[in-house]
Amino acid sequence: MNPPLNGRTLDFDRDGNCLAIIDQTLLPNEEKILRLETKEEIFEAIRSLRVRGAPAIGVAAAIGFAVTAGGIKNNDKRAFFNELDSLKEYFAACRPTARNLFWALERMRGAAENNKNAEIEDIKQLLKDEAEKIIIEDIEICRKIGENGAALLNDGDTILTHCNAGRLAAVEYGTALAPVYIAAERGMKIKVYADETRPLLQGARLTAYELCEKGIDTTVICDNMAASLMAKGTINAIFVGADRIAANGDAANKIGTLPLAIAAKYFGVPFYVCAPLSTFDKNCLSGADIIIEERSGDEISTLHYKERKTPENAKYYNPAFDVTPRGLITAIITEDIGFRI
Amino acid sequence: MNPPLNGRTLDFDRDGNCLAIIDQTLLPNEEKILRLETKEEIFEAIRSLRVRGAPAIGVAAAIGFAVTAGGIKNNDKRAFFNELDSLKEYFAACRPTARNLFWALERMRGAAENNKNAEIEDIKQLLKDEAEKIIIEDIEICRKIGENGAALLNDGDTILTHCNAGRLAAVEYGTALAPVYIAAERGMKIKVYADETRPLLQGARLTAYELCEKGIDTTVICDNMAASLMAKGTINAIFVGADRIAANGDAANKIGTLPLAIAAKYFGVPFYVCAPLSTFDKNCLSGADIIIEERSGDEISTLHYKERKTPENAKYYNPAFDVTPRGLITAIITEDIGFRI
Repeated sequence: MNPPLNGRTLDFDRDGNCLAIIDQTLLPNEEKILRLETKEEIFEAIRSLRVRGAPAIGVAAAIGFAVTAGGIKNNDKRAFFNELDSLKEYFAACRPTARNLFWALERMRGAAENNKNAEIEDIKQLLKDEAEKIIIEDIEICRKIGENGAALLNDGDTILTHCNAGRLAAVEYGTALAPVYIAAERGMKIKVYADETRPLLQGARLTAYELCEKGIDTTVICDNMAASLMAKGTINAIFVGADRIAANGDAANKIGTLPLAIAAKYFGVPFYVCAPLSTFDKNCLSGADIIIEERSGDEISTLHYKERKTPENAKYYNPAFDVTPRGLITAIITEDIGFRI
Repeated sequence: MNPPLNGRTLDFDRDGNCLAIIDQTLLPNEEKILRLETKEEIFEAIRSLRVRGAPAIGVAAAIGFAVTAGGIKNNDKRAFFNELDSLKEYFAACRPTARNLFWALERMRGAAENNKNAEIEDIKQLLKDEAEKIIIEDIEICRKIGENGAALLNDGDTILTHCNAGRLAAVEYGTALAPVYIAAERGMKIKVYADETRPLLQGARLTAYELCEKGIDTTVICDNMAASLMAKGTINAIFVGADRIAANGDAANKIGTLPLAIAAKYFGVPFYVCAPLSTFDKNCLSGADIIIEERSGDEISTLHYKERKTPENAKYYNPAFDVTPRGLITAIITEDIGFRI
């Protein structure tokens, strides 16, 4: 990973006055750091998946909130808080599915609220401190998810993962890949099959990139090849992330997670969802309550921004996520060892 | 479809001296007819998927066998038959999975054998006649598959299909799409969701192309989106083709068919395999006996011949087919109404 971010996927930069991210749409061909100062730049970066992955979206929104709150010129306390509300609402519209986005914004706004009697400049600093706390916690939480997940792995295991729920989807360890990184730290050899994850190829581009960078044996497959690997007995376990987990344990994650879970059940392969507790949404009673983002058909028709490969008059349907019912999930791995749904 | 082929996807041309095909690797952006005369040209066209789809591969091999047998210069009967054996062996090595390839070559070689006492020039003509018979039969068989399959459809139904088992995969009607075409002829409105079918996008490129050309309502999805459509109740039935069907009813078809069948069972969606009887292989007791072609990882890493999108040091696994156990298949639809496995 590029040194300016100190091993972090995203961070504050320029003395807390900008959000620095790696532009994930350019990986693995180019490692470019973006420094974002305005709310429009930050919105666009999240919306266009320059920074993506549920935990990373939450952290980006927290940093973005702190950075843009720091830029509020109004010295009237009431107007200042009104602007904070507008910022919260603005960033909440970036993407609809990941719970962590709303969780982070609520926490940031709450931190300001809890200190509403402080000076505006102090509140601005306090928001930066709160975002930094979220960053540190994210690293610790993901490490714990990794430790809890690694306990389920045996040396020599081969796992399958979907999309990217690795370092790039959080600040350091990631969620679904954290167990692999922790196992590797302990000297275990884990092989990973990475679904390429159409349409935007987060698996082929991002998961393969970060795993190969760490020297982990990684094989890229098309999404539709996973079931045949399970049929051959190649896969010991499946680890995926989650964007939102309903109160009943139904988990929304990148489109293509559901068929993996169904096939895993059919073949008797353990299916683990790895996510911080901040991904749980008690207001969603079940997966049916989770809003699924639908994105442009161009992502399908033009094969990741390349020449059109489909007829002009075909239609497209492009949901970004699907919901896996809790009955298909072997366990949800969080930072909390004792947590059960 | 291009007029030179008279509505056929592939045919004899130049007075029976060449095999004419539409280069399917260029569709839908370009409709180019290739006229192939040498065994090397024909081998390359089948190997490189310029002509593909189990029935079409069989027909291409039959025409190719007749065309190249017609070019044998040797006037010694024994030497002529030795060359026929070499040709059969040569074409049989084009691709390993589709049963129809071997079936067609055996039938062509058998037709020569049954007339071994005829003059060499007469045998050459007879081989062309036999290949023409295979073409005519393919059209009739696919039409019957369409009629048998259409009986399972209701007006307004939405079906899902994978890869291309339509007109382009046979001579006219195709297999899995034949029921849709017959239903359309009868004035029924059938909507089709077409899996794009990674890595070579036969669904996005070919199925969408031929369905849109016939004015059928077609929506392209990524392979990993099919299960979420089933979860929503959008799909009334799934129709796929087959490359080889074992004696016990296990069916090998394009990679990605198996997870569809597993999800269909999970959601209670009927799952139909459409194939001519020539796809059955009594010598394969079960799917475990079917040889699965593994193709180059470049098909995954470079996104259909485009710029590389994955890290240099990632590995690839690229099986072209998977096997769906018969327990997941609602029915196998053939040209024979009474056929049951």
